[in-house]
Amino acid sequence: MARLKTIEWQNNCARIIDQTLLPEKIHYLDITAIGQMYEAIKVLRVRGAPAIGVAAAFGLYLGVRDFDGGNGSDGGNGSGNDDIHTFLNHVDDRAAYLAAARPTAVNLFWAIDRMRKYAHHAAASSGSNADINNLKKNLLEEALRIFEEDKRMCRAIGEHGLELIKDKNCILTHCNAGGLATSEFGTALAPIYVGQEQGLSFRVFADETRPLLQGARITALELSEAGIPVTVICDNMAASVMSSGQVQACIVGADRIAANGDTANKIGTFGVAIMAAYHNIPFYVAAPSSTFDLSIPSGARIPIEERGREEVAVFCGAKKTVPDAAAVFNPSFDVTPSKLIAAIVTERGLIYPPYAENIAKMLA
Amino acid sequence: MARLKTIEWQNNCARIIDQTLLPEKIHYLDITAIGQMYEAIKVLRVRGAPAIGVAAAFGLYLGVRDFDGGNGSDGGNGSGNDDIHTFLNHVDDRAAYLAAARPTAVNLFWAIDRMRKYAHHAAASSGSNADINNLKKNLLEEALRIFEEDKRMCRAIGEHGLELIKDKNCILTHCNAGGLATSEFGTALAPIYVGQEQGLSFRVFADETRPLLQGARITALELSEAGIPVTVICDNMAASVMSSGQVQACIVGADRIAANGDTANKIGTFGVAIMAAYHNIPFYVAAPSSTFDLSIPSGARIPIEERGREEVAVFCGAKKTVPDAAAVFNPSFDVTPSKLIAAIVTERGLIYPPYAENIAKMLA
Repeated sequence: MARLKTIEWQNNCARIIDQTLLPEKIHYLDITAIGQMYEAIKVLRVRGAPAIGVAAAFGLYLGVRDFDGGNGSDGGNGSGNDDIHTFLNHVDDRAAYLAAARPTAVNLFWAIDRMRKYAHHAAASSGSNADINNLKKNLLEEALRIFEEDKRMCRAIGEHGLELIKDKNCILTHCNAGGLATSEFGTALAPIYVGQEQGLSFRVFADETRPLLQGARITALELSEAGIPVTVICDNMAASVMSSGQVQACIVGADRIAANGDTANKIGTFGVAIMAAYHNIPFYVAAPSSTFDLSIPSGARIPIEERGREEVAVFCGAKKTVPDAAAVFNPSFDVTPSKLIAAIVTERGLIYPPYAENIAKMLA
Repeated sequence: MARLKTIEWQNNCARIIDQTLLPEKIHYLDITAIGQMYEAIKVLRVRGAPAIGVAAAFGLYLGVRDFDGGNGSDGGNGSGNDDIHTFLNHVDDRAAYLAAARPTAVNLFWAIDRMRKYAHHAAASSGSNADINNLKKNLLEEALRIFEEDKRMCRAIGEHGLELIKDKNCILTHCNAGGLATSEFGTALAPIYVGQEQGLSFRVFADETRPLLQGARITALELSEAGIPVTVICDNMAASVMSSGQVQACIVGADRIAANGDTANKIGTFGVAIMAAYHNIPFYVAAPSSTFDLSIPSGARIPIEERGREEVAVFCGAKKTVPDAAAVFNPSFDVTPSKLIAAIVTERGLIYPPYAENIAKMLA
C-alpha cells in the first residue's frame, strides 16, 4: 500500500498516472513533449486544479527545452539578443498553445503565466548575459518550484485540518479533492494522509459523485491504495449513513470561495452540507488560499457551469438511462452557503465564522 | 402522448409492458401462462407492489384456467366433491409456486392469498352445487376486481393529493411511484395525472435514483409518454434545483409507514426530505393505506434491506466504477422521520400531523 503519485518529474520527463484508466488500471505515462501534455490535460489524464497547474508548468518546459535557436545572428546557439527574443517568443507561443487545453482551468493559466513571466523576467534581469540554455534551466527550476509549493501547500492544509478530526474518526467526502487532484496529498483528504503519517487511523465514506463518479473511481482508489479503509456509497445514501451515527465529520474541497465564505464545489456538495447540518455533523471545506475570489461578495454571484445531457443520460458512455423525450439538467457545481460550513481549512490556517471578516484577515 | 398501460387484461391474457426494456423500448408482452408470469415477476418485467399484486392475481388465474380435471368419479369435467377438492388443491399448489417469484413482495402474497381464499370460500358456499368452470370464472372476476380496486385506489390518492398542489406547480419526485408501479395512476404521480385530466399542467423533476435508476428509466419515461414535461437530475442535484426556487412540492411513494408516520422508501428519500425542509418546500408521501404497518411504532424498527455490491460498483452491469479494494454500502431504503413530512396522502384522504393520532383515526 502506498500513495499514488499523481505527477512526478523523473528521467527528464513528467510521469503522470493516466486517470482516464482509473479505477481499472493504474498506468503511468511518461510525458516527453508539450503536445503529449496538451492532450493529457485536454482529455483529463491529469485533472484537479493544482495537478493541472503542475502539469502545465512541466508541459511548457517540455515545449521549449528542445528549442534549437531562432534566426538570430549567431545561429541560435548563443545568447544574442535576437536569439533571446526569439526564444521568449517561442515560450509565449507554446504557452498560448498549452493554455487552450482546457478553456476554464484557472490553475492552468496561472501556472503557464507564471512560467512565461519567469522566463521574461530572467532574461531581462540577465541583460546581455542572458543565455538560452540558462533560461531553459530556469524554467525547469520554476516548474519544480511550482510542484514543490503544491506539495507543501497540501501538507500544510493537512496539518491544519488534522486539528479538526480525531483518531478513529470516520469522514464523509464528496467528489475527489484528494492526492490525485494535486501533486501529493490533496486538499480534503490531506488531513487524513497527514494523520496516517502520524500513526492515526481513519475511515472514509466516499460519495460516488454522479454524474462522473470521481468519488467512486478516484477517491476510493487513492484511499484504498494508501491503505485507508474506504466505503463507496451512492450520493443519495449519505443521509442514511449520517443518521446511523457513523460519520464524525464531512470534508470537501472547493472550486471557488466567495468573500463571505460561500463555496462552489462539485454538484452535490450543498446537499451533503444540508444533511450534515441536520445531523449536527461538522462540515468542513479544505482549499488553498488561491481558491478565494474576493471580487465575488457572495455565492449568488458565482457562475455555475452547465454541462451536456450525455453525462447524465448515458452512463459512462455505455448505456442510455434517460428516455430521449425527457429533459436533463446537469449543473457541474453548486454553492454551499457559508452558514453551513463549520470551518475552512487553508494552507495558512483554519478560518472560522464570521467568514467575511476572518477570510479577509487570513488573506491579508 | 398517452399514459402507458402497465398491465391490462385483454384477449384472455394479461398484457404487460416489459419494464426490463425501458426506457429504450416500449414492448408489450402477452402473458398466457402462470410460468410466464412467474418469470415476469421474478426478473422485474412487472414491478411495483400494487402492479405485482395485480399481476399475481391474473397469473394465478392463468395457472388454473386450463385445469382439466382431477381423478374424481366423473372424469374431472363435472362438479363432484372430489373434483372440487382436487381443483382447490391445484389452486393452492399454483399459489405456492407463484408466491416464490419474489421472496419479500408483500403484495404478491396478499393478492395470491386473496385469490386462493376466494376460491375456497366460493367452493364452500356453493356446497354440492360447486362447479369448476364457475370457480374459474369467479377467480378471473376476483383478479379483475383486484385490478379495478387498484385503479380506484390510485385515482383516489390522486384526487386527494391534488388538493396539495396548484396548476403550473413544479414537483420533485424520487424513484418511481408512478403508473408503472401500479395498474394505472401510481401513487406519488397520481395527483399529477388526475390534475392533467382536469386540464391542469405540472412540471416534474425526477431524481435519477441510484443505484438502479428507476427515476431516470421509469418515472421520466411514463411522464414524458403522458405528455408531462419532466427533467431528470442526478440525486445530488436536488438541493441545487430546490435552491433555485423552481420546486413547489416534493411527492414520493412509500414502502412501509410506521404507526408514528416514519416512512421507509427508496434510498435517498430521507435526503430529499431534509433538503426540502431546509428550503421550506413541503414534502409529501403518497401511499395506499395498506402501506401502514401499525405493528411498528416508529421508523427505528423498520428493517432495512441491504443489497449487493454490484448494483453500486458495476454500472448497469456494464462498467466497473468502484475499485475492488474499496468497500460498498448499498442500503435499499431509508427512513424519513415523520417530522419532515407535511402530509401523507392515502386513498382515504390526507393525513396531517400529529401522525400517531391521525393515522390511527384514518385507519380505524
